[in-house]
This record gives sequence, C-alpha cells and structure tokens, in this order.
Amino acid sequence: MAVIVQKYGGTSVGDVPKIKAVARRIQDTHGDGNHVVVVLSAMGRETDRLLDLALDISDEPDKREMDVLISTGEQVSVSLLAMTLKSLRVNAISLLAHQVKIETDSAFGRARIVKIDSDKILEELSSGKVVIVAGFQGVDDRGDTTTLGRGGSDTSAVAIAAALKADVCEIYTDVEGVYTTDPNICSEARKLERISYDEMLEMASLGARVLQTRSVEFAKKFKVPIHVRSSFQDSTGTIVTEEDKDMESAVVSGVTYNKDEAKITVTKVPNRPGTASRLFTPISQADIVVDMIIQNVGTDDLTDLTFTIPKDDFEKALRLVKATAKEINAQDVLADPNISKVSIIGTGMRSHSGVAATMFTVLANEGINIMMISTSEIKISCVIESKYTELAVRVLHDAFGLGEKEKISR
Amino acid sequence: MAVIVQKYGGTSVGDVPKIKAVARRIQDTHGDGNHVVVVLSAMGRETDRLLDLALDISDEPDKREMDVLISTGEQVSVSLLAMTLKSLRVNAISLLAHQVKIETDSAFGRARIVKIDSDKILEELSSGKVVIVAGFQGVDDRGDTTTLGRGGSDTSAVAIAAALKADVCEIYTDVEGVYTTDPNICSEARKLERISYDEMLEMASLGARVLQTRSVEFAKKFKVPIHVRSSFQDSTGTIVTEEDKDMESAVVSGVTYNKDEAKITVTKVPNRPGTASRLFTPISQADIVVDMIIQNVGTDDLTDLTFTIPKDDFEKALRLVKATAKEINAQDVLADPNISKVSIIGTGMRSHSGVAATMFTVLANEGINIMMISTSEIKISCVIESKYTELAVRVLHDAFGLGEKEKISR
Repeated sequence: MAVIVQKYGGTSVGDVPKIKAVARRIQDTHGDGNHVVVVLSAMGRETDRLLDLALDISDEPDKREMDVLISTGEQVSVSLLAMTLKSLRVNAISLLAHQVKIETDSAFGRARIVKIDSDKILEELSSGKVVIVAGFQGVDDRGDTTTLGRGGSDTSAVAIAAALKADVCEIYTDVEGVYTTDPNICSEARKLERISYDEMLEMASLGARVLQTRSVEFAKKFKVPIHVRSSFQDSTGTIVTEEDKDMESAVVSGVTYNKDEAKITVTKVPNRPGTASRLFTPISQADIVVDMIIQNVGTDDLTDLTFTIPKDDFEKALRLVKATAKEINAQDVLADPNISKVSIIGTGMRSHSGVAATMFTVLANEGINIMMISTSEIKISCVIESKYTELAVRVLHDAFGLGEKEKISR
Repeated sequence: MAVIVQKYGGTSVGDVPKIKAVARRIQDTHGDGNHVVVVLSAMGRETDRLLDLALDISDEPDKREMDVLISTGEQVSVSLLAMTLKSLRVNAISLLAHQVKIETDSAFGRARIVKIDSDKILEELSSGKVVIVAGFQGVDDRGDTTTLGRGGSDTSAVAIAAALKADVCEIYTDVEGVYTTDPNICSEARKLERISYDEMLEMASLGARVLQTRSVEFAKKFKVPIHVRSSFQDSTGTIVTEEDKDMESAVVSGVTYNKDEAKITVTKVPNRPGTASRLFTPISQADIVVDMIIQNVGTDDLTDLTFTIPKDDFEKALRLVKATAKEINAQDVLADPNISKVSIIGTGMRSHSGVAATMFTVLANEGINIMMISTSEIKISCVIESKYTELAVRVLHDAFGLGEKEKISR
C-alpha cells in the first residue's frame, strides 16, 4: 500500500462545504487502497482573526502565548475534517502536534522541526484510519506549543512525509501548480509539469508563494517528491523532485518578484575591519532578516554599503542603522522603500552563458534601471524601481520563452 | 502565601475589554502577595459557535473530535489572558490540560477528572508566575483530549483548588452570588452569604445554574471553600462551605425550578419483577438521564409508572418507551412535555417537621395541582404544570420567609 500525505491549505478548508469536498477527495484516495495522512492548515482567515484578537491586547503579544492562541486554528480544522470523514463512514482520527509528536525547537512563531515520531501515525494507519495531523504546530522539549511560521503547514506535511517515507506529498492549494511566473500579472504564465528542488527553493524564497521555503529544503534533504496541485480540480499539478536530464534543456524555469523589501544605503563607510559587523549586529539582534548586501569599495578607504530588508521592518531598521552610522562616522543613510526584486531562476543557467547579459539588456531596453544585482548558481535577481515590477516580469518571461510550450521540452 | 484559585466564566471573558478587566483583578490579587491560579472558560458564545460548525457537518458529530474542537475555546481565552497579564508586566503562563496534566476518563463530552498532577502548577507558582489553566478540558490515558461537559470549568477550578490545597476557590460569574431563588422571576430574591455544600448540591442539580453539580461534589469531598462572586463588582458573594451551626436556623435556604424536563407515564404495567428494568434499560442505553421515577401499585397487579427526562430527549424517550410498553403489555403511554419541577432546599428540614405540608398547602391555595412529589433529606420537589412555575416560586419564596432578611439569621 502506498503512503500518501495530502496537505490542504486554508482556502481549501475555508468553510464547511469546502471541508466536505476535501473529505470526499480523501475518501477516494483512501478507497483506492492507500494509507492516507492529511495535514491541514487553519480555515481561511482564522489565523488572521486570532492575530487580530492578540493585537487588540498588545502591540507585541507574548510569543509563547501567541503560539498557544494561533495553533487553535489547525485544531479546529482537523477536528472538523475528522468528523466529516466519520460521517462519511471513513474511519479517521485527528492528531495534534503534541500527540504525534512533532518536536521543534523553542523559537516561538518560527520554530524548526527537530524530530517527528512516526509511531503513533503508523499505528493509526495500520488500523485502517485516515490520520489527520494539525499542520503549522509543534511542541518543544518542555511541552510548550510552538508554531512554524506562515506557510508552516507545508513544512509539517513534507516533514511527516519524510518521517513516514511516504510515496508522495501532495500539496493542495488554490492554484493548479507552480507557474513560470505570477499569472495575475502575466497572462502568458504557464504551469510547469516538473521543477527541481533547487529551482523551487529559489522560486519560493524569491517570492512565489506556493510553498514555504523550508518545506522545499526538507523535501530536498529527504528526497520527498512533492506534487503541488489544485484542491478544486482533478488535474495533475507540478511535481517538485530531484533534477533530471529532461530539466536541463530549459535555461530559465521561472520569473519571480518580491515587492515586500526595502533598501537602505549607508554612504562613505570607513573601510575598516569590523564596520560591517557593527552595522548588522543590531539589525540581527532586532530579529530583522537582511536579504541582499552589496558593498562597493572605492579608492579612498571609504565604501558604500547597500542592503535590503523586509518592508515591515523598514522603520525599525532605519532607526538602528542611523544610530550605528553616526557611531562609525559614515556620511549618510539613504532609504528607499519603493523597490522590488525581480528574479529569473533555472538550473540550466549552470551550463548556459549569457543569461545575465540577456536579463540586463531586456530590462535596459525598457528603460528600467537596475539598482542592485545578486546572483547564485541558478538565479539572477535585480532590484529595480517598484513601479516597473509587472513590466519587468512580462518582458523577462517573454525573452526567455517561458510562455511558449514548444520551445521548452518539459 | 495564600493560594487562591480564581475561575472566570464565559461572560467574564466575553471580549478583549473584559479580559483586560479580569487581568487587572488578577494583578491586584497577585500584587497582594498571593499565589494565583486562574481557570478560564471559553469567551462568551465561542463554544456555541464551534458547536454550530460541528452541527453543520453532522447531526451527531464524532464525540472524540467534538472534544478536540470545542476545547480550542479555552485555549484561546487562556492565551489571551496570559498575553494581557504579560503586557501589564505580570509574569504569567497558560497551561492546557495535557500540560498540567488533568487526567480524565475517556467519556468524551462528559469526562470525569481522575487525577490532577499539581507539580507543574506548583513549579510555575514558585517562580512567581500567575498560572492560567484552561478549564473544561482534560486528557485521557491515551493522550486524547476530553471535555467535562457544560459548566465543566467550575469542576476544573475546584479540582485544581483541591489538588493544590488552595485557601479558596473563587468562582467569578455574571451574578453576585447564590440567591434564594431566581431574581428574574422573583423580585424578593436575596443573595445568600453562606450556603452548605449539600444545599448547594441540591440547588445546582435542581436548576440553579450558578455552579456545575460535580464541582460542588468535588468541593464537598475535598473540603474546598468556594466563593461565588461577580466579576463585575468587588462585593462579597456567597461562600459555599461545610455546614455550620449558624446555618441550622434556616429551614429553607432556597427555591429552585427546572423547566427543562418532560414527563412520561406508562399505565397499567403488569407488576412483575423485571418490568421496570425492561422499561429503563433502553432509555439508559440511549444515554438519556431519568430524573424522578414514581410507581403506584394498585390492587390488581397492575401499576402506573411515571418518570421525567430532559425535554431534549423527549421524542427519543417516548419512541423507546412506546416500543417497550407494547412488549410488556402495558395499557398506554401518556406524555407531557409542559411540566416544571419546583423545589425547596434547606438543611434545616432535617430537624423541622411540617415543611412538606406547608409546601403542599401553599401550592394548593393557588390552585396549583401537584403531579409528582420527590423528597430527599434536605429538599422537596413537586412537578407542576409549567405555566404555574413563576407563581409557585414566588409564593413558596414568600411562605418560607426567604425575602425577609430579619427572619433569617445568616
């Protein structure tokens, strides 16, 4: 018997009729003779409702208690789905993180999974039950409830699939799969049949909101095949898997963008050992995640340092940087929240030259100025003025032939 | 340092402003140098909201999953209160039943507490924290979530107070204490300063909805003093405690009523061993709780059997009884859902004669027919036509002098 892990997101279980539809899909998979483990997110906007309650109480609610609060969202959805399955005469049982158990570290709000005990799940599976596990939540070594951060249910699902050595981890969502780019801003966007873990990792971390980055890391590490598909249709979605030969023919697999960052530049920083550390230590201590960092060394022992941070942390970061800039005798601090990062991703870049040059030319042809550039083995990101985002995505998508199925052999 | 357990009901934590008010009260108690353990119900109508979700799925939702679902209500309220206290710089921690742990049997929806481990609570108290425990919920020996039934948070609070040997268990509610009768139907109703466990037990089981019956049984067994008081006022409420000499002077302490029952009579039942058993076994198997049972033996080996059951179970019980009545050759089944039970309660009845006679006379004077009578050492209940309920309560309250403070020495 195959072991199939199915994860349903918040929109897939948004109300009782949708939960019933999910139950029927599970009933079919179970009826086909598979062992089925289901991982659920909270219903629709439930997590936001709970967050709002907490923010009514305090601007910075206690993090431990926040996790106790928001983990109820998944507890509600798993119990409702188990009831629904039982009413359809499918034997099912809900399990919370502490019952499984899904052990995490104690970083409330963004905990990382340390270990999953598969015994309880296997025991229930072997008695013929559909096992429904609350996603997003964990329990630390003191028995405190933790949560894995936004999108954490994806990671729960993949980690459980890894622990069970499942045949596949199906991620049901409100889109049909992983697209070459965001269909909302580019009508030529096309669903990918397959994508490698590495490409998906870049896609996820660069702004394609289909899968939580950590879930893909997990899948890659434990070689769990992921099938991203729609919970509202029966069609095949996108398989995220190890790189194979077929994939090599595509130079670029997708174009992503991220409008949620802001840019800060510190000018004329004395170019001495330790200045970068002094600049970034307070930022990291404030739990602000820095994305790109670029430093230009001039001729006069002074350097300009530019970096990007999440827009939500912009004011806080700016305050911290201004204080440090003064201390280290930098000249000025320039800030720009109106930026966006546009990226192209593809494992084919490894063996193809000229990809970066094409990207820069395409953007230049549209009069789009590139403020920052960052590259990795399989992606190139450019920071541009925010207002050009959609245009940039469309011209890049077109330039690399992503809309034309014939050109791409997958 | 005194150990004080405070329990707040759903109306006391109905919204964020009310939770903040509760937090300030706890802050004061904690600031006065007490160890404070708080037990909470779910916010206002939250439990009903969750029940409605479940009933959207199935008329008879799976009981195990139902408990997983509705126990989230308390999880939300304890985390919100802990956040609020922390924002007031009071160190606080929320604990769920499985963290405490509060062990129960596996009777989902109406579980009974088997054992409470006080170690975790004591550990947190000794580090100066206010400990906030989710009421209403427990965990069975398999680690499954259970709930204690409506009003179960009272029982959680008293059981925790017993386990901690607390100095007092304060039950905060939306009324000022325990009244001689329902102030909504009798303007003369008066708040009692003290009441014995036994009287409170009768009051609770006979329809005064201030405390869950089982919480009073627990309090009696472990001699936990309960202080029933208003969460919206600072005044002293009612102390529920062991019987003392002062209490003896009152013959009757209170008048209660219950409109939630229905009456079924089986006529001309062959008076043979085993017939009662055959009648009541199917009813008990259907989980219907029978309250009063009265049997009149006639002269001709035939008897009439009358009993009351919750109105919610009326149709179901009637169906079962009609089937059995046929089997045992009874003549007829008569049903009456329009009844109510009016009771007078008082430990003083033990040493006073004529109380029953007074009750019957008072009702007769108003032309109220008594259909059934049931007595215990400290209470007399009469089943009457439902429409006379309020009248009966008022005349009994008056006849036993409950409204006149001078006549009663407490």
